[in-house]
Amino acid sequence: MTDAIIPPRSGVAFLLGEGRELTVTDLEGVQVADLVAYNADDVKEVISNGRTLDYAEKIKLTTGDVLYSNRSNPMLTIVEDRVGTHDFLLTPCSEATFRHFYPDQPVHRGCFGNLAEALEPFGIDPDMLPVAFNIFMNVPVHGDGRITVEPPVSRPGDFIRFRAEMPLVIGLTACSAYASNGGTFKPIGYAIGPHPKA
Amino acid sequence: MTDAIIPPRSGVAFLLGEGRELTVTDLEGVQVADLVAYNADDVKEVISNGRTLDYAEKIKLTTGDVLYSNRSNPMLTIVEDRVGTHDFLLTPCSEATFRHFYPDQPVHRGCFGNLAEALEPFGIDPDMLPVAFNIFMNVPVHGDGRITVEPPVSRPGDFIRFRAEMPLVIGLTACSAYASNGGTFKPIGYAIGPHPKA
Repeated sequence: MTDAIIPPRSGVAFLLGEGRELTVTDLEGVQVADLVAYNADDVKEVISNGRTLDYAEKIKLTTGDVLYSNRSNPMLTIVEDRVGTHDFLLTPCSEATFRHFYPDQPVHRGCFGNLAEALEPFGIDPDMLPVAFNIFMNVPVHGDGRITVEPPVSRPGDFIRFRAEMPLVIGLTACSAYASNGGTFKPIGYAIGPHPKA
Repeated sequence: MTDAIIPPRSGVAFLLGEGRELTVTDLEGVQVADLVAYNADDVKEVISNGRTLDYAEKIKLTTGDVLYSNRSNPMLTIVEDRVGTHDFLLTPCSEATFRHFYPDQPVHRGCFGNLAEALEPFGIDPDMLPVAFNIFMNVPVHGDGRITVEPPVSRPGDFIRFRAEMPLVIGLTACSAYASNGGTFKPIGYAIGPHPKA
């Protein structure tokens, strides 16, 4: 189900050609992967939660939904989703969020730091990191407007598959925050190309 | 209650010194104002819905809540709020969103175009426009994850007041989208400094 593995609390960046498919797999279950995307031909065009939520008219995105850029262009279509619970409200965890939420734990650079390092060779500055599409992240919005970070509902082998609607630079992590992953850190698998046989 | 008026379907940009207060008033009621903010000393630091919602642990922001930057620094504190219903999920309306949501209406450059023009003298590129804090915008999140754009609940003279926590470039509009404002376009008032006597 996977070509490559992102070790716990780390991240990668790579090119994804237009029309190619990216499958992201929760290898062990209950783990989050933060995904960001940039137009490979002009990295100032970037995935946008605000544009996407506006066009989708919902905050729960799944099969058939499109992730849009800040220029209102389709970047990724979700073509298959075995989980159906993802977050597009929150920014990647960072040194600052670790200090805020986990003052008794060692500070970690988090998905933000991992993405910043992985994306630097593509000319992407840390200030250009948007709200990520947080795959498998479980962030219910309650009736009174409160949001909570709950353990993912993904089980071992669950995956989500995207099609690139333009040439993309992708950043992808195995998330580093305690709350996002039910308190433990696990790897994330990914594959590029047609979905492999189960 | 106001020093300056933003005409319907237009926008302005201005500097707001650290510690200064900005009051935004819905002069006629049922009107939205999109607000964006940048660090005046380094405009790559920008208001972030993802960071703000993460720290606030809620999507409904009001008196006492802080709007954070992409670098996790406080930019604006809401010091008084007579409405309590605002949106921080959706991007400013634009030519593309007009084509999408109002195909039978004339295309308008929207808050996005108005902000882009107003912010250009500050060295801010249209691609640097984030999700705005949409003052008075009424976007309920329903139990199934759907979001709808409802008329604002603000009445004539209702206002919200912010304190700048760093030197800021502010962009501010009188919103141009039909759904956001109950189908009509009205002006927005604003004032800088201590809150004037009612």
